[in-house]
Order: sequence, then C-alpha cells, then structure tokens
Amino acid sequence: MALAFTLEQLCNVIDPIKVEGNTSTPLSDIGALDSAKEGDLAFLGNDKYHAQVAECNASAILVPADYTGSSPKENQAYIFVEKPSYTLALICGQIEAALWPKPPAGTHPTAVIAESAKIGKNVHIGPFCVIGEKATVSDGAVLDSHVSVGTAATVGENSHIESGVRICAYSQLGARVHVLPNAVIGADGFGFIPVDGKIEKIPQIGNVVIEDDVEIGAGTCIDRARFSSTRVGKGTKIDNLVQIGHNCVIGKYCFLCGQVGMAGSTTVGDYVTLAGQVGLAGHIKIGDKATIGAQAGVLGDVEPGATMLDSPAIPLGLAKKLMVLKMRIPEMHSKIKAIEKQLAAK
Amino acid sequence: MALAFTLEQLCNVIDPIKVEGNTSTPLSDIGALDSAKEGDLAFLGNDKYHAQVAECNASAILVPADYTGSSPKENQAYIFVEKPSYTLALICGQIEAALWPKPPAGTHPTAVIAESAKIGKNVHIGPFCVIGEKATVSDGAVLDSHVSVGTAATVGENSHIESGVRICAYSQLGARVHVLPNAVIGADGFGFIPVDGKIEKIPQIGNVVIEDDVEIGAGTCIDRARFSSTRVGKGTKIDNLVQIGHNCVIGKYCFLCGQVGMAGSTTVGDYVTLAGQVGLAGHIKIGDKATIGAQAGVLGDVEPGATMLDSPAIPLGLAKKLMVLKMRIPEMHSKIKAIEKQLAAK
Amino acid sequence: MALAFTLEQLCNVIDPIKVEGNTSTPLSDIGALDSAKEGDLAFLGNDKYHAQVAECNASAILVPADYTGSSPKENQAYIFVEKPSYTLALICGQIEAALWPKPPAGTHPTAVIAESAKIGKNVHIGPFCVIGEKATVSDGAVLDSHVSVGTAATVGENSHIESGVRICAYSQLGARVHVLPNAVIGADGFGFIPVDGKIEKIPQIGNVVIEDDVEIGAGTCIDRARFSSTRVGKGTKIDNLVQIGHNCVIGKYCFLCGQVGMAGSTTVGDYVTLAGQVGLAGHIKIGDKATIGAQAGVLGDVEPGATMLDSPAIPLGLAKKLMVLKMRIPEMHSKIKAIEKQLAAK
Repeated sequence: MALAFTLEQLCNVIDPIKVEGNTSTPLSDIGALDSAKEGDLAFLGNDKYHAQVAECNASAILVPADYTGSSPKENQAYIFVEKPSYTLALICGQIEAALWPKPPAGTHPTAVIAESAKIGKNVHIGPFCVIGEKATVSDGAVLDSHVSVGTAATVGENSHIESGVRICAYSQLGARVHVLPNAVIGADGFGFIPVDGKIEKIPQIGNVVIEDDVEIGAGTCIDRARFSSTRVGKGTKIDNLVQIGHNCVIGKYCFLCGQVGMAGSTTVGDYVTLAGQVGLAGHIKIGDKATIGAQAGVLGDVEPGATMLDSPAIPLGLAKKLMVLKMRIPEMHSKIKAIEKQLAAK
Repeated sequence: MALAFTLEQLCNVIDPIKVEGNTSTPLSDIGALDSAKEGDLAFLGNDKYHAQVAECNASAILVPADYTGSSPKENQAYIFVEKPSYTLALICGQIEAALWPKPPAGTHPTAVIAESAKIGKNVHIGPFCVIGEKATVSDGAVLDSHVSVGTAATVGENSHIESGVRICAYSQLGARVHVLPNAVIGADGFGFIPVDGKIEKIPQIGNVVIEDDVEIGAGTCIDRARFSSTRVGKGTKIDNLVQIGHNCVIGKYCFLCGQVGMAGSTTVGDYVTLAGQVGLAGHIKIGDKATIGAQAGVLGDVEPGATMLDSPAIPLGLAKKLMVLKMRIPEMHSKIKAIEKQLAAK
Repeated sequence: MALAFTLEQLCNVIDPIKVEGNTSTPLSDIGALDSAKEGDLAFLGNDKYHAQVAECNASAILVPADYTGSSPKENQAYIFVEKPSYTLALICGQIEAALWPKPPAGTHPTAVIAESAKIGKNVHIGPFCVIGEKATVSDGAVLDSHVSVGTAATVGENSHIESGVRICAYSQLGARVHVLPNAVIGADGFGFIPVDGKIEKIPQIGNVVIEDDVEIGAGTCIDRARFSSTRVGKGTKIDNLVQIGHNCVIGKYCFLCGQVGMAGSTTVGDYVTLAGQVGLAGHIKIGDKATIGAQAGVLGDVEPGATMLDSPAIPLGLAKKLMVLKMRIPEMHSKIKAIEKQLAAK
C-alpha cells in the first residue's frame, strides 16, 4: 500500500457516525488489530477480536456504532461506523483502483487473433493471448497475458480474464465476469461408457454458460456439457480449485468455497453456500438457500433452506446431536458392561 | 449445436429397433427430458428419469427397447434402441467431429522448437508452444496453444495435448493420450528428509509414463518418480484436479474421478474406480476391480473386487451397517439410561 | 537415468560404513526392492520392505548399518550406511544435476519485459515470459517458459519458477524459492459481503510473501491478503493443488501435503504437518509442531504438538478410541436388546 491519508481525508471518504480521539499520523497501511502499528488503520470486523481493540497500536480503528469497552490512546482515533467491514471495503476499493488500475485499451503485438474473431471497443488484450475463429471479446473486456479463447467462445462486456485462463470453444461468458489465473472454462466433460470390456468416450457437445457478475477462482475447472449447457448463474462466486462437472446447473448468488467438487448433472438453486471441500454427488438437486458445511458429502436431494453436515450429509440438528453422542460412546460402552455385570451377579 | 437432422437421417445413422410416432421437425439440438423443446432430441439414459418421458416436449426421444409407460405425443417420435446412452454417443460423435474438427497439420510460426526435437508427420503445433531438446512429438499429434514439452519428453501418436499443458522433461506419453488444459505431467515429486533440523529435498530423478488411450483431466497433476516411473496404465481415465504422487502405479482401464488424491508409491490395479475426492495413503495396494466410494480415505491395502467407503475406509457392508446404527445411537443412549433407572429402582 | 557408476565409483561418493559382497555390473538405474534387476541400485528405506532385501535382484542394495536377515547373492553387494534414504538422495542429487542442469543465463528473444523491471545477473528467462512494470527478478533466478510476473512483484535470488506459473502483482518471493508448473501466487482473495441482497466484492489490497527456501507445488494457489500479507514461512514445503486463502500465515519448516485447503486468516505455527486433503477452517490457530492427519477437518484452535484426526478433528488418542468403539456399535446394539429382553422376562 503506497498511499497515505490524513484522518480528515479518510473521514471525508467514509462519513463516519462519530470519531473519538484524534491522530496526526498519516494512515499509510492497513493492519490487523493484534499487529497494527503507528500509521496503520485497523478495524473490528468480527466480534471475536473485541478484546484486541483496547491494546491495538493502530493510529485509527474502525469500530461498530455500538462499540464500548475501551477508549482511544494518545494520538489514536476510534472511527464509529455502521459496518466496519463494509467501510473498510470502500476505502480499500479506492486503494485497489490505484494499485491495480484497469490496463489501457489495445492489443499487444504478440497476440494471435483469428481474422473471424470480433473484438469490441476499449478491449485490452495482453501478450501471448490467442483468440480463435468466430470468438467474440466484448467492449471493455480485459485479457491479461497467455489467455486462450477458443472457437466461437464469447467474453462479455467488461469481463476480466486473468493470465493463463483457458476459455474453451463455444463457452459463453456474460458481462463483468472475473476469471482468475489458470482457470479452465469449457473443457471436455468426463463421460465414458463401458463397451465390450473397453471404455468408450461419450462425446461432450454442449458448452458452458457463465452469467453476468460471476467470479471464478484460480485453477477452477468447469466442464462443458454432454449436450445443452453447464451453467453458472448471475452473481455466483466460485473460489479456487473448484471442480464442476458436465451439465451442472448452479443458480444465482451462490458461494462455492475452495476445493468444492460437483459431479455431473447436479443442480444447485439460488443463494446456496457450499463450504470448503464439499462434495456433491451427480444427478441431485440442492434447494435454494441451502448451506452445506465444510467437507460434507451430499448423496441425495437437499431441501431449500436446509443446512447439512457430515459425509454422507445429514441435517445440521441431527449431525450436532450425533456428534455429542459420539463422544459418549465410550461411556455407553462402559455402562453396558456394568449393566451386564450387575445382571450376571443377580 | 449448429447442425440439423431429419428423423429419417437420424435413423439411417443409428439403425433403431423400432420407431413409434413421427416428427416432421428437424432435430437441431439435444435436450434433457425435463427441459427439451420442439426440435430437440432427448433420451432416457437413467431409469431415475423414467416418469419424465411422458411429459417431455422433445421432437424425438431415444428410449430403451423395453420402455413402456407412455406413447408419443403428436409430431413426436419414440426411437427404441438397445442402449439410449450409447446411441446418443454415436450421434454426438458425428456432431463433435463437425464442431471440434482436428486442426490441420502445421506448426504455428510463433512456436519455439529445439533443433534436436523430433517432430513427426501430420503434427499440429499451435501458437506459443515450446518443444525442448531431444523431445519427440509423434505422427498425428495435436498440441493446442501455450503447451510446453520438456527435454527428452515424448508425445505419442495421435495424442491431443490441450492449451497450457506442461509435459515436463523425460515424461513418456503413449498413443492417443488426451491431456486437458493446464494439466501438469511429470513435475518434481514431493520428497523431503529432515536433516539436522532443516528439510532437505530428495532429488526426484525418475519420470512419468502414460500408456496408450489415457485421458488426463484439466488441472490434474502427476508427479515424476523419485526413481523409476510414476505410471498410468492403458485406457485409464482421470478427471480434473486429481493429484497423483511420485512413484504411484495405476493399472489399466481405471476411473479416477474429480479431485482424487494419491500419496506417493501407491499401486492401483486394473479396472479400479476411485470416486470423487477419494484419498489414498502412500505405499498401499488397491486390488483389481476395487471400487472406492466418494470422499473415502484409504489407509491400507484393499482386496481385489472390494468396495470401500468412509474415512478411514471400511468394506461397504460394514459401512452401511454402521451408518444405520449411527442413526440409532440416540435411541441406544436413551435405552441405556432407561435400563439403569429400571435397575436402580429394584 | 543415463549414467552408470561402478560399485567403486559409487563408494567413493558415499563413503559407506562397510560393504558385503561385490558386483562387476555397472550401476545404471535405481529400482525398487521388489522390481529391481541387474544393473540397478536398490535401497531399504522403510522397514516395511525388510523382507524384500533377500529376494532383491539389484546389483547393489543400500541397507541400514544394523541390517541383518540376508546376505548378498552372487555378483551383488550390500552397502551399509547410516540412513539409506539420505545416501540415496546424495547419489540422486548428482544424477539430477546431470539430467536437469540449470539452464544458462540469458533472456529468450520472445520474452516481454517491462522497461521498468529490474533483472539481476545470471538470470534465465525462457520463451513467452512476461515481466511487469517495476518487477524484480533477482540474481541467479530461473524462469522457465510462459511465466508471468506481475507489477512490482519480486522473485528472489536463485529461485526457480517453472512453466505457466503466475506470480501476481506485488507478490514477494524470497531466495531459493521453487514454484512448480501452473501454480498461482497472489491471485485476488475470496472476500465478499452481502449488501442489499447482492454480493459485493471486498477489495483485496494486500499481497503474498513467500520466505526463503519454500517449495510450492504444481497447480497450488495462494491468494493475496485482504490487507497486509498472506505469508509462507522459511523452508516450508507445499505439495500440489493446495489452496491457501487470503491472510493465512504459515510458519517455518511446515509440510502441506497434496490438496490441503486453508480458509482465510488462519495461522499455522512452525514445524506443522498437514497431511493430504486436510481442511482448516478460517480464523483459527494451529500450534507449533502440530500434526493433522489426512482428510481431517479442523474447526478450532489446535495446541502445539497435538496430533488431530477426523472431521471435525479430535485428538489422536480419542479418535483412535472412538474408531475401535465404532466397530463395536453393532455389538453394543445387540447387547442392549438382550438386556432389555432379560429385564422384560423377569
């Protein structure tokens, strides 16, 4: 972080509810409550860290409106805001725009672009990109280096495709889609059929459709459909190293955390959260607003709004009950022995 | 899907057992039973969807020879075949050849090819490929863009290496091997030894051998051996984001589903299935035709033909029994309490 | 392995405790005890394979100083050393240096290097590399092909960055860091906040810091921090396809095995081992020298030195006890039934 703000400049940007204390030190970095030093801006975003505010050495601390429990040290300000996390995001957005500016429009001379490809206005195409026949790169899109866009694939307006991403043939990406480095969109689906003791490939002739405002993490792979489309709904956010099989359909505004795996033809509703390393079997349906806990393995349909844990996954309430009782199994075992003895003694 | 067939043209290709009904609508897309519309070809590939046939709006539906339960609507045909999934694969194969034609032979002018590399006949080498010293790319092989082939590595006849794949030095790939985008074959194995409180690397001087007809998924990593070879047997199919440690030996015609992980020096027999997110410990043996269920963690040897579940993995029968009883633990706990009360009351 | 040593040449390199038997066959390959043939060097590195020594057909076998149980065959030598694994590593190091020589200094003419980038002495930059503005590539570093180094990122002295790696903007890599193919360092962190029914991105304006002597596996992704740094400590070794979330801090000399996943803001101490497919929740602390068993899911803090298993993770002793009792649940269930009958009969 190479920028510095005075407390006054900062307050002009974020319009706080109130400020306690003051600091003359320019704010030039952001730090965690327990390690921030003079010149840092810290924030209380998770109540777990409440006790760290009193000891914090940051020059300014963003705290929630109802914060109590300590007062600013000398040359330190508490800035009271509705949601410290959200306010920090606003500040960081300004810093981000300075440190990661959108690259200027233009095509690097090393890029290889098919004659039949359509390149929109204000597009940035970086070194060593390859754009295939009949592909479309829409207005305002940014392709960093080493990107490949296959035959007849589409990159939507103002999308950002980072280095090393593979957009395979016929994939359709909407507007403002952000694909992180080395992700693979639209590769051949994993479909085989045993024939006469050998394994025959089932051709996968569908594609991948990514709706607007989706983010796709680094190294994540989304396979193209056997036919029709593998689909990711508007606003869904997918973390790194996630595997999405052919013909999966994911709804709007879902979160798929790191290393989630979905077998083929599974449907996920809207506003669903799949925590880290979750596995979904093929050909099942996850209802809207369901939440699947980390490492859970889901083998059957899940009701809308349900929270599931464990492998195979069971409802949260049952899972918690069983977890408590699991710890009592040694006790249960001893009691059975004791009862048997008691009965034998009679 | 940009092609259209009449029902008659389709039947000429697939030679059905019989046809019920008829349609004059050209078939121009393939759809799932529950979402297909006029002009689509649908199919009943999994009996789970049997009830959807009657409601399906596709112009033609592939059904198994013994299908009963509904009759075609107006302007709709049921096409009876031995195996709808396999028939569909035949049709799709024709479409695939049209949409994903093999690229013409030739080397893109941007490719960097070492003088000592041997390039066969009818090879396609795409933009920004790098072929190292003494590497071999055999007849009919296709390398898409941004591929690197290391020193003395071999790509077999008619293999297809997709964009961004890394074939590291000394790797040996057989004929008709298909490697999906951004996979890494033959990277340095993960071998270390603690020496005097530090960690020393154990040099990994073996290689990777991939036999004929293997498919390797997007983002999958197969490490080279500490010595000798990490080996994948003929016809084995590996899905995306799979991790195969150094010195693993995998047999013929296996399936490794998405995100499987194998630690080092583990041996897998022929016709083995490892379902999604399975983990295998190092230095163990999985017998021929064994099946390991999704998310299972295998710590010891597995008998040929066995089916294993759970983490740590246990045989299917036992796993199922324990799963049923797990749900009865609350009842067991209550019963023990009740018995204790009853005994105390005496 | 293209080199050959006589037994005498080998002994000159490794200085053994003693040698039993002799061989006139030059040693030209390294083989496993159960498959080695004439001309191979084998070794007993894991006592599990003790019985294989007697049957082994290698021309020479490295055995531990206290080995007993068999004597060399004709034209075969047993070489007694302190630690066979370590001795083999020494030998392999010599072979490795011959087969994977450090490439010569120089920049390939296809590389695209920003004018403001600083390139040190004796640096190798391979084909199709892209070095961004104000980036630094320090003395002796090697970048294989297709590498991208973002704005103001630093690659330390004698580091080795393999093909297809993405070093994103502002990442700082120390000396002798080894990054395997297609890994992604410093991509955008996965941070969002729900605002008015939509999902807003939280800008991630920190970076990634990799200390000296770290190894990062193929396809592994390490996200940049929301603010401050995601950090990997000196000498830590990370295997393939590992996911490290934003703001994680990993200590010195840790091992992270294949497909480990760490959610954001988690802290791992020094000398920690995370076995394959382990998942760590966000915002927790793993103490120094802790060991987390394969596939375990850790939801809370872990004490220094603790060994944890299971998902959710529990201490090793308890996990083992519960695993034994789990197998007795069918017996417990039957016993409760029997007791109930017995009581009812009275």
